[in-house]
Amino acid sequence: MDKKTRNFLCSDRIEDECGIFGGNLENNPQGVYLGLYALYALQHRGQESAGIAISGNNGIKVKKGLGLVSEVFQDLDPLEDFKGDLVAGHVRYSYGEQGKRPENTQPLLLRYQYGEIAVSHNGNLINNHELRKELESQGSIFQTTTDSELLAHLVAREGTPDLIESLKKILPRLKGGFAFVILANNQVIGIRDPLGNRPLSLGKLENNQYVLASETCAFDTIGAEFVRHIEPGEMISITREGINSIPYAPAGSALCVFEFIYFARPDSNLCGRNVHLVRKELGKILSKELPVTADFVTGVPDSSISAASGFGEAAGLPYEMGLIKNRYIGRTFIQPSEETRKLGVKLKLNPVRKIVEGKKVVIIDDSIVRGTTTIRLVKMLRDVGASEVHVRISSPPVVSPCYYGINIPTQEELIAYHKSEEEVCRYIGADSLKYLSTDNIVKAVGLKSQDLCLACFTGNYPY
Amino acid sequence: MDKKTRNFLCSDRIEDECGIFGGNLENNPQGVYLGLYALYALQHRGQESAGIAISGNNGIKVKKGLGLVSEVFQDLDPLEDFKGDLVAGHVRYSYGEQGKRPENTQPLLLRYQYGEIAVSHNGNLINNHELRKELESQGSIFQTTTDSELLAHLVAREGTPDLIESLKKILPRLKGGFAFVILANNQVIGIRDPLGNRPLSLGKLENNQYVLASETCAFDTIGAEFVRHIEPGEMISITREGINSIPYAPAGSALCVFEFIYFARPDSNLCGRNVHLVRKELGKILSKELPVTADFVTGVPDSSISAASGFGEAAGLPYEMGLIKNRYIGRTFIQPSEETRKLGVKLKLNPVRKIVEGKKVVIIDDSIVRGTTTIRLVKMLRDVGASEVHVRISSPPVVSPCYYGINIPTQEELIAYHKSEEEVCRYIGADSLKYLSTDNIVKAVGLKSQDLCLACFTGNYPY
Amino acid sequence: MDKKTRNFLCSDRIEDECGIFGGNLENNPQGVYLGLYALYALQHRGQESAGIAISGNNGIKVKKGLGLVSEVFQDLDPLEDFKGDLVAGHVRYSYGEQGKRPENTQPLLLRYQYGEIAVSHNGNLINNHELRKELESQGSIFQTTTDSELLAHLVAREGTPDLIESLKKILPRLKGGFAFVILANNQVIGIRDPLGNRPLSLGKLENNQYVLASETCAFDTIGAEFVRHIEPGEMISITREGINSIPYAPAGSALCVFEFIYFARPDSNLCGRNVHLVRKELGKILSKELPVTADFVTGVPDSSISAASGFGEAAGLPYEMGLIKNRYIGRTFIQPSEETRKLGVKLKLNPVRKIVEGKKVVIIDDSIVRGTTTIRLVKMLRDVGASEVHVRISSPPVVSPCYYGINIPTQEELIAYHKSEEEVCRYIGADSLKYLSTDNIVKAVGLKSQDLCLACFTGNYPY
Amino acid sequence: MDKKTRNFLCSDRIEDECGIFGGNLENNPQGVYLGLYALYALQHRGQESAGIAISGNNGIKVKKGLGLVSEVFQDLDPLEDFKGDLVAGHVRYSYGEQGKRPENTQPLLLRYQYGEIAVSHNGNLINNHELRKELESQGSIFQTTTDSELLAHLVAREGTPDLIESLKKILPRLKGGFAFVILANNQVIGIRDPLGNRPLSLGKLENNQYVLASETCAFDTIGAEFVRHIEPGEMISITREGINSIPYAPAGSALCVFEFIYFARPDSNLCGRNVHLVRKELGKILSKELPVTADFVTGVPDSSISAASGFGEAAGLPYEMGLIKNRYIGRTFIQPSEETRKLGVKLKLNPVRKIVEGKKVVIIDDSIVRGTTTIRLVKMLRDVGASEVHVRISSPPVVSPCYYGINIPTQEELIAYHKSEEEVCRYIGADSLKYLSTDNIVKAVGLKSQDLCLACFTGNYPY
Repeated sequence: MDKKTRNFLCSDRIEDECGIFGGNLENNPQGVYLGLYALYALQHRGQESAGIAISGNNGIKVKKGLGLVSEVFQDLDPLEDFKGDLVAGHVRYSYGEQGKRPENTQPLLLRYQYGEIAVSHNGNLINNHELRKELESQGSIFQTTTDSELLAHLVAREGTPDLIESLKKILPRLKGGFAFVILANNQVIGIRDPLGNRPLSLGKLENNQYVLASETCAFDTIGAEFVRHIEPGEMISITREGINSIPYAPAGSALCVFEFIYFARPDSNLCGRNVHLVRKELGKILSKELPVTADFVTGVPDSSISAASGFGEAAGLPYEMGLIKNRYIGRTFIQPSEETRKLGVKLKLNPVRKIVEGKKVVIIDDSIVRGTTTIRLVKMLRDVGASEVHVRISSPPVVSPCYYGINIPTQEELIAYHKSEEEVCRYIGADSLKYLSTDNIVKAVGLKSQDLCLACFTGNYPY
Repeated sequence: MDKKTRNFLCSDRIEDECGIFGGNLENNPQGVYLGLYALYALQHRGQESAGIAISGNNGIKVKKGLGLVSEVFQDLDPLEDFKGDLVAGHVRYSYGEQGKRPENTQPLLLRYQYGEIAVSHNGNLINNHELRKELESQGSIFQTTTDSELLAHLVAREGTPDLIESLKKILPRLKGGFAFVILANNQVIGIRDPLGNRPLSLGKLENNQYVLASETCAFDTIGAEFVRHIEPGEMISITREGINSIPYAPAGSALCVFEFIYFARPDSNLCGRNVHLVRKELGKILSKELPVTADFVTGVPDSSISAASGFGEAAGLPYEMGLIKNRYIGRTFIQPSEETRKLGVKLKLNPVRKIVEGKKVVIIDDSIVRGTTTIRLVKMLRDVGASEVHVRISSPPVVSPCYYGINIPTQEELIAYHKSEEEVCRYIGADSLKYLSTDNIVKAVGLKSQDLCLACFTGNYPY
Repeated sequence: MDKKTRNFLCSDRIEDECGIFGGNLENNPQGVYLGLYALYALQHRGQESAGIAISGNNGIKVKKGLGLVSEVFQDLDPLEDFKGDLVAGHVRYSYGEQGKRPENTQPLLLRYQYGEIAVSHNGNLINNHELRKELESQGSIFQTTTDSELLAHLVAREGTPDLIESLKKILPRLKGGFAFVILANNQVIGIRDPLGNRPLSLGKLENNQYVLASETCAFDTIGAEFVRHIEPGEMISITREGINSIPYAPAGSALCVFEFIYFARPDSNLCGRNVHLVRKELGKILSKELPVTADFVTGVPDSSISAASGFGEAAGLPYEMGLIKNRYIGRTFIQPSEETRKLGVKLKLNPVRKIVEGKKVVIIDDSIVRGTTTIRLVKMLRDVGASEVHVRISSPPVVSPCYYGINIPTQEELIAYHKSEEEVCRYIGADSLKYLSTDNIVKAVGLKSQDLCLACFTGNYPY
Repeated sequence: MDKKTRNFLCSDRIEDECGIFGGNLENNPQGVYLGLYALYALQHRGQESAGIAISGNNGIKVKKGLGLVSEVFQDLDPLEDFKGDLVAGHVRYSYGEQGKRPENTQPLLLRYQYGEIAVSHNGNLINNHELRKELESQGSIFQTTTDSELLAHLVAREGTPDLIESLKKILPRLKGGFAFVILANNQVIGIRDPLGNRPLSLGKLENNQYVLASETCAFDTIGAEFVRHIEPGEMISITREGINSIPYAPAGSALCVFEFIYFARPDSNLCGRNVHLVRKELGKILSKELPVTADFVTGVPDSSISAASGFGEAAGLPYEMGLIKNRYIGRTFIQPSEETRKLGVKLKLNPVRKIVEGKKVVIIDDSIVRGTTTIRLVKMLRDVGASEVHVRISSPPVVSPCYYGINIPTQEELIAYHKSEEEVCRYIGADSLKYLSTDNIVKAVGLKSQDLCLACFTGNYPY
């Protein structure tokens, strides 16, 4: 199920994170637009705000705002005198009121004693609060609630003009899963946390210019070639001349498994594994966990469609579009009242009676968090006549909150923390329910268990 | 392939038509919003403009504008004093500059000697030009290029206060495929052309209030129950008391087959047939027409995905997401220049190298018109390493233009008019190409050949 | 007092009319912008909407919208492909809900059997209702409530391609005060009503291109030279070659005296008389009508400042800024509630205590209609300590409604219809009140009594 | 001449400063709107941006943006949940690109170790650069170029929760002319620089709630009573309970004389002197400096009208509207090209031929800076036929730049630094020219010479 649908249905899900981009776009025929196209490709990682910073002859300029890339940049005149070559971009997702504050839009442009920097950030520092307190007690002021501002404060207090040197000292102090793109006057720096919890990749344009992006689909979109992933604990500096790699911490490995399950676009690759194919594999293995007799399988669009088609192929069940999603997203579209919703108004997801009626349905979703969304899905299908509803979840039960950048609610609110699989099945009103086991998700992803962050399923936090 | 993608890729396709809605929303807790939700469900039929007319105590009011439903109605204050119960709504697709003219937005509100009417229209009158000339020669003036204005002129010249009587005389003079929703002070009239070329259905809300919509998915969205299709040559009048059916012409039958192939949403039903299931059947039958040895099948999102999954199931091929579509539509987003596009910028559709590379691919699309889109698709797949590209089209060759509401170019521009299947295959650079035969499309749709308009494939026009 | 202030204070005044412009802008370096500058100069005649039509190679195009010229045309991209030479423009004032209806914005573009025309209109047809009924009974439909649409219907029904010939037949049927600018493919036609009630002037640009405008200040703004007034009952056709004058009715003379008193900009000239100088003369003569002992004279900004300075000079009283107006007009600025207003919130006009306190004040206003505005003005001055408030009105008592284009309320609402000068004085709470006599206003204007429309003061209507 | 006109004509003038407002609006029926009305009254002090901060139950919220108050707050929904009682507001003028940067809009909201503060600022710190360097060298980062951010940094570094105590230590370090309004959780603090160079006044609403504003016209607008001026070197803390005065430096006295000459609204009072009356006095005295034989006197609207009427009264010359200003300000209205301007396009100021032609004109302006504006004015008047043009300036020659908040160019650019009165007269093409002497301006203002900052005329800087 995609993020927007989740929010719409019940705000009952794992929330998302941001998308970042940066690099050298010197001499590109469309200049900064190439950066906008990259952000457009990363839009699924955040729809609350978008922005781009560009370093040119007159220092760094930023254009950013609340809304989709296509909305923020629909008035393109400001880009006329927005010339330059090094860029950093950002699309933001954020939970609750924070996301609506214009000052939290990124990249964040700051001036300190050695010049200007613009910072884009994805992830969450678990020692954010502690670092802020420390800085505040030393007299720092904060205008935003972003980790980008925090990083800039630390850089400024390092007291050296060498940005790389500063970062080498600062980054080990940051705890959590994070990726940064920092634009300075003459370089773009990409940073990935020591455990590689948040993704960041390196690509190359035709003319040997390097770019960075949260996901590889951004490279495909702008015609860049994937070079490699930024290593955990690695900084990479892109200049007009080339790149330079600076490891700043021993490389651990704890890539967030939810990137595979739900966040990333199916055409992106992570650790050399295509996301669609991994999800299909999740579905295939899931189909073995608890065999079921059914008429067809369907997936919650869009994130569970790959898994559902894998499930179908392995189980020998046809894949049908049992739920249709309305794609004409509008941030400000008025939502139906609870009263109207009871009358059957279904704005985003429509279960198809002609397909479902009288049928035994297997429905695949990627996760259950609080359970309220799944209750509605099961009810929707029964309302249009499903004779049986079998729920299959392409991930294990979520039993622990996430501190690294995903908005998973407190443990109290997690249904799987309180209830067994069987109890959840009854709670959501399904005829059967099966999660994927942790072992099998690791198997499907194709990485070693110790290379993934599985904390939300196991409670074992990598930090 | 969806309409927007088509436009983006090359403006080389069958164009679309509009979506209309109307009915009695008396005493609904969300009043006019229910009408907006219906339009939102019909948004795939037109993204150029949206509007709604409502009849209340102070006559008929209209709010409309260029853009998506969510854009036009994002400022909701005007709806505060926008109270009433009978409504007519419209979403508009139109080709070229016409669609950008604000005066062409609908519903069109007009005053004549017997009061006000608001008109929403879907389709195309083939004798439009002739009727305009006739009216102009009698001294009529035109402020728009819509058929809605034409109809209103004819109504005004009938010279009787009985709207139904006027329409009974006028409608037989209209040639072409059309559906109208007309809002008057005390009724909403739905009209379908004598051959039923354009769809229009009747639904019922919980409290026995009747509504009309181009597609049944609008009923699902607002919690209405499907009652029946409006018959060809039938007018239906919805009042605050109930409905009244008025046949105005003998019912022929020539439903546009492209509604099944491409226009309608997969969760809509036409003539009792679910669109997704019909498309799946198209894919299944297509797989028999020319067997192929391949690694997987993929469809051009979104319209060809059902057919592709049917093809896969029947052919025993896995379905893979070989092409990913960016869903963050923005009307005004700046497009890549031809120069950048050559560098590999792919904004809307991304072929997935990890899935495609080294593979024999079957790609399903719903139609070929000029052929230029298909050339690009084949090239895209080869560029990411497809070893073989087999194109399968879930409809017959398009050899004749459409005069009833679909923007098919002149015969000269239709590639299938000039080239045989084999020649087209070479032209698009595919390893093999197969269209669905006309007989088989009729079979898959499950209606009689004489009940469908197949003119674009056969040149036999129903009028 | 200016129109906006009036509206703000109590909607208790004579309302305004529109401004029109047109002409040949061929080969002008800024093309259509020259037309926008002219509209900007006429903005005081209407702030509800603005629009311009231009005739170029691809027919006539219109850009228009609700708001000020600077708002409607702030997005200038559409003008890029908005090339042409002949133009017609419009700024609109209108009373009540009509003014907020987008379809009523002008110029109105219409197609009829012999081509396209765009129409701009200022004034009011007193037989509007009758002509509409006649046209409706012949089957005409109306999309707006403008007289421009009415004229276009009449033109279309004339049935001849010769626009001038049509107009010669039609114009004598129109009753009321009006001025039109009509843009056709190859000419711009200016029309003034047979009594010359509404103003329209002819100007000439440096390169001998002719232009038309409601007021001469538009000529000054665009660097055009004033040529002459359009004669009452005259049509003038401007082509790319030159001009042609076509009288269509005997020239009467009944110029609206309120143009001098209140509507026109002080730098405009009417019948060769500068508006500021006429107003100053009004003030001078007014000072003789009832001598008064006072400390200073002040005028209600902006329209009464000229009269007040004339009064001061003739009476030997200093002119002081007793009332200051806030000039930062915003159409949508939220107005104070009645409750807050009682607490003393004064958004538009501020009486200056330091100037007024303890002083005997003469305040000049241009007219009293319902009287409610004047009550407030007197109270405002007393609240800041005026020891005496003497009201002087630079026009006679308004006792009859206007049917020619000015929104004067019904006779019942006119305070001077019910009350003598003395009674009005008591009602508004002034220490003394004096109107200008009708004889003296004629004297100050410097035209013959029979050449002016004085109907609102005398009840003698010229038609 | 008003600021906008100046900018339009040639960007050749003294620039302006900002307007600030703050106070306790508890229990006011229109709550925060009262603050908006106050800003609307101060709009003449800055049209680049507007903003308001409000302290309520959930901390401090800010709404601000580029544009006029009426533009920034036209979408009022955000104010729905914008409840609170203590407020700080700001309207901003700023020169060049700084003013267009959204991050420079104020009030600036910041979080530091002891909570949140929002800061509004008017003026200029002459040791800004030095203080920034010092802070940067200690590791501070800057996101704006405002002095508000600078002050916040200093507060944060003081390291005490007592905001008043912090300010007592910090303020003596600030050099220049300034006024601040600082909003904290439970108080609003008003600050005026030790020399009182920038104005700030205290007012009281009906219910004994205190408010602060740059000019007293804001009090009139919201129905507040003027209490007193904030003393130079005084801080005043407004809480929900009342006020508390805290002197932080010995009170000097060097009020910027340009507030009287040009900045302030004529209905404001400064040091108990009404601005209009002071300006009128300037004109009266000016008329004695160099007697002239002329037909009439006129002033450059709006700022020189008071002086011109004073001149006229004292010299026995009639006051005429020789120049008319178009008041329909649009920030984004496209300006005429130089080419068109040569053709006579005059968008903002129109000289009135009927008034000027053949006449000896005295024109009053408030100052000459570079001289280029005055050249144009003289030429404008001659172009419409003035037989003589006598220029009178209601201030002395500007010979020194301003460092305290007014954008006067470098000394090199000041025409009076290079040229004598006679030379300037020749340069601008006038028949005669006279400035007001410094002694006489002091006399007209009615304060002691040592109580005014006259540095731009004398070069004697008070700091």
